[in-house]
Amino acid sequence: MAKIQPLADRVLVKPIEAEERTVGGIIIPDNAKEKPLRGTVIAVGNGTKDEAMVLKEHDEVLYGKYAGTEIELDGEKFIIMRQSDVLATIK
Amino acid sequence: MAKIQPLADRVLVKPIEAEERTVGGIIIPDNAKEKPLRGTVIAVGNGTKDEAMVLKEHDEVLYGKYAGTEIELDGEKFIIMRQSDVLATIK
Amino acid sequence: MAKIQPLADRVLVKPIEAEERTVGGIIIPDNAKEKPLRGTVIAVGNGTKDEAMVLKEHDEVLYGKYAGTEIELDGEKFIIMRQSDVLATIK
Amino acid sequence: MAKIQPLADRVLVKPIEAEERTVGGIIIPDNAKEKPLRGTVIAVGNGTKDEAMVLKEHDEVLYGKYAGTEIELDGEKFIIMRQSDVLATIK
Amino acid sequence: MAKIQPLADRVLVKPIEAEERTVGGIIIPDNAKEKPLRGTVIAVGNGTKDEAMVLKEHDEVLYGKYAGTEIELDGEKFIIMRQSDVLATIK
Amino acid sequence: MAKIQPLADRVLVKPIEAEERTVGGIIIPDNAKEKPLRGTVIAVGNGTKDEAMVLKEHDEVLYGKYAGTEIELDGEKFIIMRQSDVLATIK
Amino acid sequence: MAKIQPLADRVLVKPIEAEERTVGGIIIPDNAKEKPLRGTVIAVGNGTKDEAMVLKEHDEVLYGKYAGTEIELDGEKFIIMRQSDVLATIK
Repeated sequence: MAKIQPLADRVLVKPIEAEERTVGGIIIPDNAKEKPLRGTVIAVGNGTKDEAMVLKEHDEVLYGKYAGTEIELDGEKFIIMRQSDVLATIK
Repeated sequence: MAKIQPLADRVLVKPIEAEERTVGGIIIPDNAKEKPLRGTVIAVGNGTKDEAMVLKEHDEVLYGKYAGTEIELDGEKFIIMRQSDVLATIK
Repeated sequence: MAKIQPLADRVLVKPIEAEERTVGGIIIPDNAKEKPLRGTVIAVGNGTKDEAMVLKEHDEVLYGKYAGTEIELDGEKFIIMRQSDVLATIK
Repeated sequence: MAKIQPLADRVLVKPIEAEERTVGGIIIPDNAKEKPLRGTVIAVGNGTKDEAMVLKEHDEVLYGKYAGTEIELDGEKFIIMRQSDVLATIK
Repeated sequence: MAKIQPLADRVLVKPIEAEERTVGGIIIPDNAKEKPLRGTVIAVGNGTKDEAMVLKEHDEVLYGKYAGTEIELDGEKFIIMRQSDVLATIK
Repeated sequence: MAKIQPLADRVLVKPIEAEERTVGGIIIPDNAKEKPLRGTVIAVGNGTKDEAMVLKEHDEVLYGKYAGTEIELDGEKFIIMRQSDVLATIK
Repeated sequence: MAKIQPLADRVLVKPIEAEERTVGGIIIPDNAKEKPLRGTVIAVGNGTKDEAMVLKEHDEVLYGKYAGTEIELDGEKFIIMRQSDVLATIK
């Protein structure tokens, strides 16, 4: 299977579908002005001199609705976004 | 319960509802051009090299109406915002 | 009474009402393209690494009409603004 | 009389009226795309770490039409502008 | 044959046509808000003091739909883009 | 005669009229998307820490059509512009 | 003949006409979203502290359609552009 290595301060994130998103106790309200989405970090870039990477594989993250670029790999959807578009990790 | 850890120079804030907001003596006028809101800091990020964190858990804060991104956790609403969107602390 | 501590390079200013503003000899013309307003500094932030605070409590200041965010505390109106939005002090 | 002390890299300028402005040999053309205006520096700020003050009291200056903020002090009009909005000094 | 040497932090990329793009397991969804494209790096610039080059010849890359400038060389199409427009490498 | 001393990284330029502009062999095409103009440097500022002055009095320069601010001195038109708006010198 | 010396990080480029542009094997497609053009570097500036010059006289270059400012010298058209507007050199 092809492997995607994000460049610079980007991360590859596998989104968690809305149905699953209420399981862990976090519900994204429908009327939020900018709804955050939830996903799992699959791969991280090497960072830049301005942005060291703090995210790592398997981190669960919240990110803005318009963050990053969607791609499809082996039939699954992923998003490549900059680390600075990630709002928080969920533990 | 899931725990949200804000990234970089962000803070997780629990808003204080409008009804409660007159108790401490602070009333936000309805005709203000940009009304600040009030909340309690729940969690803070680790900061960045440009922005060290001065806010800490339990701080009461004022922030702009359009600051940050709303999320819902275990049925409660929170806002994730950058520390620079926080106007002041209340003591 | 609640105490507001401005964050970073912000100051808390108590505006001086228009009626009082001609007493000290300073009149703001009605046809000015951007009318400055006058107030008294109530509290100052700790500054940032880019902006050290030069204003201090009790300073009388002139500031632009659209500077900062209005709040109401114990029935009085205040404005929280960045120090860089303050045009001048009055002595 | 109240004294105005400009903040940071700002200067307080007393404009020279149009009628007087042809006396020194400098006429501002009516069809210029952005007409500079002429005035006298009354007070200067302390500068910033990025902008040291080179202007001083009594300097005659040319500045852009939209520079700064008008104020009125003891019945006279002044303009508070950033030093970087001053185009030139006149000797 | 003429050889193109990208300047600064640019790379010369030969796009992989859409038909070929499903072979390696990566499919770009039609409804993505900004579809990434895939290509092969043909030549890289020398970088700048702000952007060291991490890409090298023969790297397979994903890049945004609007990245760079198209050119045609000996009947083949190429794109010159900044390294920062490259989202990820594919291994 | 009044003397104008440009501030910071500005230069005072006396434009050369269009009729004269074909004498030296340089013709500005009428259909150029942004026509450069030609003039002579009359005075230069002291520069800034970011922009040292390389232009000097008597330099002939080309500059963009919308560069700077026109002024009139003793009946003659001049332009005050930033050095960075000067495209080239002519020798 | 007048000689043009570009200022700062600018280069003077003599465009190669479209008819000649297919000789060297490089054809600019008509449907490209921003067509690069080809030319020869005639003169280079001295650079700035942020941008050292890597281009030199006689380099053949590709540049964006909207790069720089056209001038006419002794009946020939030239373009003055910033080095950062040059996409690549051709060898």
